[in-house]
Amino acid sequence: MLSVRRPAAGEKNREDSEFMREEEIHQQCEPEEGLHEECGVFGMYDLDGKDVAAPIYYGLFALQHRGQESCGIAVSDTNGPKGKVISHKGMGLVNEVFVDGTLEALKGDIGVGHVRYSTAGASTRENAQPLVLNYVKGTLGLAHNGNLINANELRHELEYSGAIFQTTIDTEVIAYHIARERIGSRNVEEAVLKAMKKIKGAYSLVVMSPRKLIGARDPFGFKPLCIGKRDNAWIITSETCALETLGAEYVRDVEPGEVVAITRDGISSDKSMCIPKEQHARCIFEYIYFARPDSHIDGVSVYGSRIKAGRFLAMDSPVEADLVVGVPESGNAAALGYSLQSGIPYGSAFVKNSYVGRTFIKPKQSNRESSVKIKLNVLREAVAGKRVIMIDDSIVRGTTSDRIVKMLRDAGATEVHMRVSSPPFLWPCYFGTDVPARDQLIACNRSVEEIRQIIGADSLGYLRLERLREMVNGLEICTGCFTGKYPMEPPTEDIRGDYDA
Amino acid sequence: MLSVRRPAAGEKNREDSEFMREEEIHQQCEPEEGLHEECGVFGMYDLDGKDVAAPIYYGLFALQHRGQESCGIAVSDTNGPKGKVISHKGMGLVNEVFVDGTLEALKGDIGVGHVRYSTAGASTRENAQPLVLNYVKGTLGLAHNGNLINANELRHELEYSGAIFQTTIDTEVIAYHIARERIGSRNVEEAVLKAMKKIKGAYSLVVMSPRKLIGARDPFGFKPLCIGKRDNAWIITSETCALETLGAEYVRDVEPGEVVAITRDGISSDKSMCIPKEQHARCIFEYIYFARPDSHIDGVSVYGSRIKAGRFLAMDSPVEADLVVGVPESGNAAALGYSLQSGIPYGSAFVKNSYVGRTFIKPKQSNRESSVKIKLNVLREAVAGKRVIMIDDSIVRGTTSDRIVKMLRDAGATEVHMRVSSPPFLWPCYFGTDVPARDQLIACNRSVEEIRQIIGADSLGYLRLERLREMVNGLEICTGCFTGKYPMEPPTEDIRGDYDA
Amino acid sequence: MLSVRRPAAGEKNREDSEFMREEEIHQQCEPEEGLHEECGVFGMYDLDGKDVAAPIYYGLFALQHRGQESCGIAVSDTNGPKGKVISHKGMGLVNEVFVDGTLEALKGDIGVGHVRYSTAGASTRENAQPLVLNYVKGTLGLAHNGNLINANELRHELEYSGAIFQTTIDTEVIAYHIARERIGSRNVEEAVLKAMKKIKGAYSLVVMSPRKLIGARDPFGFKPLCIGKRDNAWIITSETCALETLGAEYVRDVEPGEVVAITRDGISSDKSMCIPKEQHARCIFEYIYFARPDSHIDGVSVYGSRIKAGRFLAMDSPVEADLVVGVPESGNAAALGYSLQSGIPYGSAFVKNSYVGRTFIKPKQSNRESSVKIKLNVLREAVAGKRVIMIDDSIVRGTTSDRIVKMLRDAGATEVHMRVSSPPFLWPCYFGTDVPARDQLIACNRSVEEIRQIIGADSLGYLRLERLREMVNGLEICTGCFTGKYPMEPPTEDIRGDYDA
Amino acid sequence: MLSVRRPAAGEKNREDSEFMREEEIHQQCEPEEGLHEECGVFGMYDLDGKDVAAPIYYGLFALQHRGQESCGIAVSDTNGPKGKVISHKGMGLVNEVFVDGTLEALKGDIGVGHVRYSTAGASTRENAQPLVLNYVKGTLGLAHNGNLINANELRHELEYSGAIFQTTIDTEVIAYHIARERIGSRNVEEAVLKAMKKIKGAYSLVVMSPRKLIGARDPFGFKPLCIGKRDNAWIITSETCALETLGAEYVRDVEPGEVVAITRDGISSDKSMCIPKEQHARCIFEYIYFARPDSHIDGVSVYGSRIKAGRFLAMDSPVEADLVVGVPESGNAAALGYSLQSGIPYGSAFVKNSYVGRTFIKPKQSNRESSVKIKLNVLREAVAGKRVIMIDDSIVRGTTSDRIVKMLRDAGATEVHMRVSSPPFLWPCYFGTDVPARDQLIACNRSVEEIRQIIGADSLGYLRLERLREMVNGLEICTGCFTGKYPMEPPTEDIRGDYDA
Repeated sequence: MLSVRRPAAGEKNREDSEFMREEEIHQQCEPEEGLHEECGVFGMYDLDGKDVAAPIYYGLFALQHRGQESCGIAVSDTNGPKGKVISHKGMGLVNEVFVDGTLEALKGDIGVGHVRYSTAGASTRENAQPLVLNYVKGTLGLAHNGNLINANELRHELEYSGAIFQTTIDTEVIAYHIARERIGSRNVEEAVLKAMKKIKGAYSLVVMSPRKLIGARDPFGFKPLCIGKRDNAWIITSETCALETLGAEYVRDVEPGEVVAITRDGISSDKSMCIPKEQHARCIFEYIYFARPDSHIDGVSVYGSRIKAGRFLAMDSPVEADLVVGVPESGNAAALGYSLQSGIPYGSAFVKNSYVGRTFIKPKQSNRESSVKIKLNVLREAVAGKRVIMIDDSIVRGTTSDRIVKMLRDAGATEVHMRVSSPPFLWPCYFGTDVPARDQLIACNRSVEEIRQIIGADSLGYLRLERLREMVNGLEICTGCFTGKYPMEPPTEDIRGDYDA
Repeated sequence: MLSVRRPAAGEKNREDSEFMREEEIHQQCEPEEGLHEECGVFGMYDLDGKDVAAPIYYGLFALQHRGQESCGIAVSDTNGPKGKVISHKGMGLVNEVFVDGTLEALKGDIGVGHVRYSTAGASTRENAQPLVLNYVKGTLGLAHNGNLINANELRHELEYSGAIFQTTIDTEVIAYHIARERIGSRNVEEAVLKAMKKIKGAYSLVVMSPRKLIGARDPFGFKPLCIGKRDNAWIITSETCALETLGAEYVRDVEPGEVVAITRDGISSDKSMCIPKEQHARCIFEYIYFARPDSHIDGVSVYGSRIKAGRFLAMDSPVEADLVVGVPESGNAAALGYSLQSGIPYGSAFVKNSYVGRTFIKPKQSNRESSVKIKLNVLREAVAGKRVIMIDDSIVRGTTSDRIVKMLRDAGATEVHMRVSSPPFLWPCYFGTDVPARDQLIACNRSVEEIRQIIGADSLGYLRLERLREMVNGLEICTGCFTGKYPMEPPTEDIRGDYDA
Repeated sequence: MLSVRRPAAGEKNREDSEFMREEEIHQQCEPEEGLHEECGVFGMYDLDGKDVAAPIYYGLFALQHRGQESCGIAVSDTNGPKGKVISHKGMGLVNEVFVDGTLEALKGDIGVGHVRYSTAGASTRENAQPLVLNYVKGTLGLAHNGNLINANELRHELEYSGAIFQTTIDTEVIAYHIARERIGSRNVEEAVLKAMKKIKGAYSLVVMSPRKLIGARDPFGFKPLCIGKRDNAWIITSETCALETLGAEYVRDVEPGEVVAITRDGISSDKSMCIPKEQHARCIFEYIYFARPDSHIDGVSVYGSRIKAGRFLAMDSPVEADLVVGVPESGNAAALGYSLQSGIPYGSAFVKNSYVGRTFIKPKQSNRESSVKIKLNVLREAVAGKRVIMIDDSIVRGTTSDRIVKMLRDAGATEVHMRVSSPPFLWPCYFGTDVPARDQLIACNRSVEEIRQIIGADSLGYLRLERLREMVNGLEICTGCFTGKYPMEPPTEDIRGDYDA
Repeated sequence: MLSVRRPAAGEKNREDSEFMREEEIHQQCEPEEGLHEECGVFGMYDLDGKDVAAPIYYGLFALQHRGQESCGIAVSDTNGPKGKVISHKGMGLVNEVFVDGTLEALKGDIGVGHVRYSTAGASTRENAQPLVLNYVKGTLGLAHNGNLINANELRHELEYSGAIFQTTIDTEVIAYHIARERIGSRNVEEAVLKAMKKIKGAYSLVVMSPRKLIGARDPFGFKPLCIGKRDNAWIITSETCALETLGAEYVRDVEPGEVVAITRDGISSDKSMCIPKEQHARCIFEYIYFARPDSHIDGVSVYGSRIKAGRFLAMDSPVEADLVVGVPESGNAAALGYSLQSGIPYGSAFVKNSYVGRTFIKPKQSNRESSVKIKLNVLREAVAGKRVIMIDDSIVRGTTSDRIVKMLRDAGATEVHMRVSSPPFLWPCYFGTDVPARDQLIACNRSVEEIRQIIGADSLGYLRLERLREMVNGLEICTGCFTGKYPMEPPTEDIRGDYDA
C-alpha cells in the first residue's frame, strides 16, 4: 500500500493526492458532485462475554453510507490477558474488507468499529480506524467521527513536547491527550473528560480501554451518537439505524458534552462538559442528507424531517405541475413531502444503476458517454409531456443539476421546476463536512435567478433558512454553511484537507 | 479457479455445487428469494473502425441487472489479421472484472460482450461468456441469452460424432452447430440459420465472425433483442436501456425468428425462420421483473407495463387503505400504478441498504440478525398507524413476503394488504428463468387464502392472468409458468440445472 | 484474465504477445537467455481409494522446473458419479495457484496434473492444462508434454469436419482424436493408440478417463515418461525426481511408443506402436539442461551424464587454469566433472540471488543496473588473480555469456576460459524446445573462434557431437538442433509459435 | 489485514500468534530448523536530485536474504515541500510488494528501505518498516536492524510520560527518543547521538530527515552497516553486496558507535559514542550464516571466512572420506574449504527445489511426504558407495540434520560424517538473532557424542570456539550464543518475542 505522509499540518497541499495506492489509481472517476459525510462509529460491550465482532460488522454495514473508503474493527477480551487487542482494517467497503475468516479471528466481548470517508489525499491504510495503541494503562482502541478545529495547534504543541505522529487523523491527537491525561487521572473516563477540555470542534467518539467502553460527544452535539442495548450487550453508535439492523433496543442519545462509560457494572455518565442546550449546534445536513432516513437523531426522525422539508417547499415555493420527482435517492422523501402538501402526483422519473460503485472506472478512450447517463437514466414514459418538479437535497457545484434538468427535457418534460430541500450553500464547514472551495460553490455570489439560468430550470426554489429548525422540531442546529455564523470561532488557517473526520 | 466438469448432460446432479472457487465459498449467503434473470448480450461493430471495447463495457454495465455472476468481452479488428480475437472474462461484476488496463488492451472495431447469471453449480470461469473459438473459417465469438430445451439431445448427438465439450453451457452446443453448418454454407449467416433449425428453445444470440456481427432471436421471441446505432456503429443488444446509456439511437427490435447481419456494407436481414406472430411467446417476466424499467421490448415500455399492472390490481383487487408502497425496487412502479388508479397515496415504507452486494457474507456465529433486516428496514414514521398496501412483483417461496409483512406490522402498520403484480407462479420454466422446484413454490397446491394466511397479510391479491396481454398492449406472450401450457413441448427429463442461459 | 485467440494456426505472429493479462504486463523482464523446457505431467490412481490431489501437488512441485507459467490438477472419484471431474488451474507457480482450500476441494482417487511453459503469446488461462472435457464416454482429463509437428494439418482437417477449438494447445487436437476414435473402439486405450497413429511429433501424455489412468509416449521417445508406485497407488510422470519426492518406488520408464493403462485390475501395456529402438530419438537437452539432476531418464542418471559431459570437455578441450566454476545452476555438474577429470580445483564463483523469480520487475527509470548483476554476483575472493574455467550448458544468443565473462574479469580473474557442455546450437527444434529464430543463434554462421571473440573469453570449447551418445550410455538421441537432421521430416511451415508443448 | 496489538511489553505471550492475516494462515509450514536473520536496511541520498526508489528497490532485493516477511521504501524530495514523505510497505518479498506503478509513484532523491524478518506473532502490516512519522521538525523515516535489550524499560518510561505506541517494534522506541532529543538539539544528528545514549543493544539504523540521510551503528558493532557511493549518490546499507548489485563503489564501513550524516554538503561523521575496539562485539553469525557470501563486513570477506571455517574443520576434525558436501546453500563454502584443506574431493550431494518459497503450503491430508524431501533430494549418483563428509553451518534443534544424514545413507553413502562450521549453540541471543528456547537447542546439556548419536552420523565435529576470531582475521566478535558471556548485561526478563529486530 502506497501512502503519503505529509509535512506538519497546515503546510499540506492537495497535489499529494497524486500518490495513491494502485487500486485507487485504477478507480478514479470524475469528482462526485455533492457533499460527503465523514465517518461512522460503532462500539459494543457484551456483558455476557459473547463475541462482538459479528454484530459490529452488521452495525458498520448499516453505517456504510457514512463512509466507504476504509473500515475496521478492533476487539478485546475483557477476561483475557489485559489489554490484548486484535484488529482488522483495510481500504474498501465493509463487505470487501471483512472476508471469510477475518471475523472469526476477532474474538472478544468488547470492541469498536469505524467506517471512514476522507478526501483522496489522506485516503491511506495508515489512516484507517479504529486507531489501536498501547499507552501507560495498556491498550486503547478509538473510533472517531467529526473534525477538530484546533488539531493543528494541538499537534504542534504535542510535537514540541516530543510526540511523534504516524497518521494524519485527528483521532491520533485525541489519543495523545487521553494518554497524557490518563497519568494523573483516576480512570480513563476522567482522562477522556480532561482531553475534551483541550480539543475543540466536532467529535463523536467511541473508546475501548481494556475493561471499558466509552462514548463521548462534543458539547455542541455536531455529530450524532446514541446508545442501544441488546440482551446484556451495550452499544454506542452513530445512528439508530444500526441498532434496528441488529434488533437492538434504542436506549437514548448521548447528550452533547456527555461522556458515558460502560463497565461490567453497567452504564455511568458524566455531564460536566455539557453546555446550555441553547448553544447546541447539530449539523443540519445529518437530517437533510447524511443520515439514513430510518434513523432518529436526538429524537427527531430523519425521514420525517425530510418529508417536512418537502412540505415547506410546497408551501413556500409552489408551482403548477403534473408530477413531483426526487433525484435518487436523497431527494425522494422531500419529493414525497412536496406531493403530499401540494396534491401534485409523486412519481419516479429516474432509473439508477445500482451497480455503479466506488470502483467504477471511466475508460479514457470514451468521452462520449457522460457518467450521469451511466448512473441515471430517465423514464421517458413517466415524464414525457409533463410539467415536472424535481427535488434534490442540495446544489453544490451545479453541474449535476444542469445535466439532470437537461435529461428530463430530452425525455419530453415540458417544464422542469427545481426545488432544493436546503438553503443555498455558501460557506465552508469546519466541522466535518467535505465542501469544495468557495469559488466552486454555485450559490456563492450568485442570485437564485442566476443559478436557475445556469442549471436551465424553469423555476428554482430553495428551502428557506427559517424552516430548518422547524424541520427538526425546534432542535438547536448549526447553520454555518448557509450563514457563515459558526457556533465557535473558526480557525484562521485552512484546516480542511486531509485530516480525518 | 476451481471448476467442476460434469458427467455427460442429463446425469448431472446438484450436489456438485459444493465445489466452488474459494471466493464463492466465502460469499455464500442464504438463498435469494425470487426469480433470476439469466444473461444479457451486447454486440457492436463500428464501421468507422473505432474501438468498441469501451462502449461494450458501458453497455454491459447497463445490462448488469441481467447477470452478476461473470462477464466478458471479446473483440476483433476487422482490418487486422483475419480472425484474431482478444478477450477478457472473469467471475464478478463488470466493474470488478474490467479494471484498469484491461479495456485498453481490447483493441478492435467489432466485439461481443456478455453478463451471466447461472445457478451455483456451473458458476465457473470455464462457463463465462463470450465463448471464443477457432473453426473452419477463422474465429467466432458468441454470447447467448436463453435456454435450449434440446441441448442434452444435441450434446449426445454431437458426442456420438466425436465432439468434445469443454463447458456446460448451451452456447457451446450452438457454436458446434454453426461450425458444422458453416461447411456447406455460403456464409456464416446461413450457418446460423441452419443451426437455428436444429436448436429448440429460447435464445437471443450475438455472434462475431471475423468480419461480421450477427444477431439472432428464436422464433418464439422469448428473450428480447434489439438493434441500435450510434454514428456509424451498429449495436445488437438485449435491452434498449443499454442503447440509451450510450446515447445510441434505437433502430428496432430483432424480430422473433430473424437473423440480422452487420457487415461493412450495413445491415441485412433474413426472416425465413420467422413464424406467424400469433405463435410468439415472449417471456412476460421480462416486463414484470427482469428488464430495466427504462427499456422498451418489442415496442412496449417496461415501466409502462408495470404501471398498468398496478392499475389492474387496483381495479381487480381494491381495498381501503392509507398508503400504497412497493417492495424495493421491483414493486415500486406497480405500487405507483395502484396509487394512481386508486387515489390512495403512494409512499416509501422501506430503506434498502444499497451496499448489500453479491459478496455479502453472513458470519456463522450470528444468527440473531435476520438478513432481511440487514437489507431492508422499515420507515416507522411512514407506516405507523396506517393501513398499508404492499406490492411485490411475485411470490415464489413466500418466506420473504412473510418477513416483510411482519416488519410492517412491527413498525405499527394497522393493516397490511399484499398485492402481487403477476399471477400465481405454479409451473417450471424451461426457457431460461431459474425457478425453484415445484414443491418449493408457495402457490403450488394452495389457494390464495391459504397463501394469505402463511404470509400473514390481511388480504392478498394477484394479477389476473387475463390482464397479462393487456399489460403489454396485446403482444403475444408465454404464460407457461402460470398455466403449464408452453409454446412448445417441454422436455421429459429435467433440463434445468447448470446449463447456461 | 485477458486472453488472445489467434487466427487459424500458421497465421500466428508474435506481435500478439503485446496482449497479456495485466499481471503479466507488470512482470515483464528482459528476455531470458537460454532454452526453455515445455511442460511436465503427473498422473496418479490410488487403487485404495485415497485422495490423490495432495501427492499430485507435491509431484508438480518437484516438476516445477519444467514449466512455471501455469499449472493445474484435475481429479475424479472412480467410485463417484461416473465421470465427474473437479479441476483447478491457474497462471503461476504451483504454490501460487494452489492455496489453502483448493486442494481440499479436489476429492478423488484418480487425477492428472500439469505444469506448463510456453512462449508469451499463448500464455493464457485458456491454455492451462490439464484439459478437461466431456465426450461420448463421459469425461477426459489430459496433460501433455511435447510438440506435434502435424498439429496444424490435423486442426485444419478437424475444422473441415466441423470441430471447434477453444485453445491453441496441441492437447486439444489430441483430445479430439481420442474422442473420435473412441466411438469405434473397445476402450479408451485403444482410442489413444489409434489417435497416436494420426499425431506426429513429440508427446508424453497422461490421460484420465472415468475409471482409468493412461500414459502414452511417442514412438521416438522424445520426452521422458516413467511409472512409479507408492503402496497401492500408481503414478505416471515426466521425471523420477517426482517419485522420489513422494517416497514412491520407481517401477520403470514407459517405453517409446508404449501405451500403459492403470485400472482397478492393475497395469496393462500395449506396445504395438513401438518402433525399433535404433530409431529412438530422445531429446538430449533433457540430460544436458531440462531435467532435474536427481532424475534418471530411461535408466541414465541426468547428474551422471552431466558429470560425464564435464569430463569429456576436460579431455577434449583441456586448458591450464586454477579454478573450474559452473554458471549456476545448470553448469555446476559439468564443472565438477571437468574438475574431477582435470584435477583443477572446483569452486564457486557466483552468488545467485534466489529471490529473482518469474515476477521480477525492472523499473524503467533504472537502466544502470544490469539484470545480470541483480541475479548473479561474482565472489571476488574466489576468482581474483586466478585463471578460471567457466562452464555453461549452452550458448544460445551469447549475450549472457558475454556479460558473465566480463564480470569474472572485473572481479580479477586473469584468464577466463569458457567450456560448453553441449555442441553449438544451430537448428530449430520442432519437438518442444523453445529456440530463438536462427538469426539470433550466435553459433549460426560463425566459427568457434568468432564466437569466442564476441563473448570475450580467452578460449572456448564445445562438447563434441560424438560425445553425446557416450554421455548417455549409448542411448539413441535426437541431435536435430546441432545437425539439422531430424528423426522425422520437419514441417515446411513454421510450426513453432504459440502452440503448447 | 488482521493485526494483533499486545498488552504492554513483557506481558506478551506467544499464543497471540494464532491471529494472523488470512494469507499467513494459509502459508503455515512446519517450523524452520535453523536461525533467522532479522532485517536489512538501505538508505540513499542522490545529491544530483535523481530518484532513488529504483536503486533502493534493487538494494533491498540484494538484501532479501536478511528478511522475507515484509518490506518497504519511504522517499522524500529534498527540493520539494519540506518533509513530505511518500512510502509504500507491505507483507511479502520485495518483488511481491513492489509491483508495477508503485516505484514510479515514489518520487524523491532521498529515501530509506527495509526488509524484515520477525517471529510470527508480530508479523503484521503495522510493524513493517520504514517507520514514517511527523515530529517537531517535520518528518522522519527510520529503518532499523537489530534488537534493543532495554526496549521494554524505555517503553514503560515513555508511556509514563504520555506516549502512545502503535507498533511493537523497537524502531518506534528509537524514534520517540530521537523526537524528544531533537527539541534541545542543534540538528537531527545530535538528536540521534543523544538517543543512542539511552538505547542499549544491537542496532544499525538509517534515518531520513527532510534534508539528511543518517546512518548509526551501535557502539558494539553487532550488526553490519556500510557506506557506498555511485556517481553523486551516497548509500548507507547493511551489506556490501547491495552496493555491488547497484554498481556502486564501496567507501567504508560505518564504525561501531559512529553516526554519519549525508547532507547536500557531503558526508560528516561523529564518533563520540565509539568505544575502544577491544570491546566490539560483532555478531559472528553474520559471517557464518546470515550475510551473503559476496559481502565484506568490516573489511573481512564473508565467503573467505566460511572457506576458512571449512579449512579449520579439516585441520581440527579430520576424517578419511571420499567426498565433502555442503548442506545447501549455506554449507557449501565451508565444504569447499574443507575440501581444499583436506584434498578430499568436493561435490554436490543434494538437489534443492528452488521453488520452495515462503508461501509453500503443506496439505493436511498428506503427512507421508516429509518436507525435507520436498525441499532437498539426494543425488544418488554422487554419494552411492561413498564415505561422505557433510558440512552445515549450525545445528539448532537437530531435526533437519537427522533427516539429511538418513537421506544420505538411504542413497547409499557408506559413512556420513557431519562437520559444523560453528561451535555448539547453547545460549539465547538478545541482540537480534531468533533462537529457539534453550530446551529446544540440541547442544544444550548434551555432549557432542550424544548429539552424534541423535543425528545418526558416524562422526561429528564442531568448529572450535578459538577458531572464530581467526576466521574473521582477528576482529572482535560476540560469542554470547556459544559461551553465555555477553558484551553487556542481558535483561533479566525475556525480551525476545515479537519485538522487531
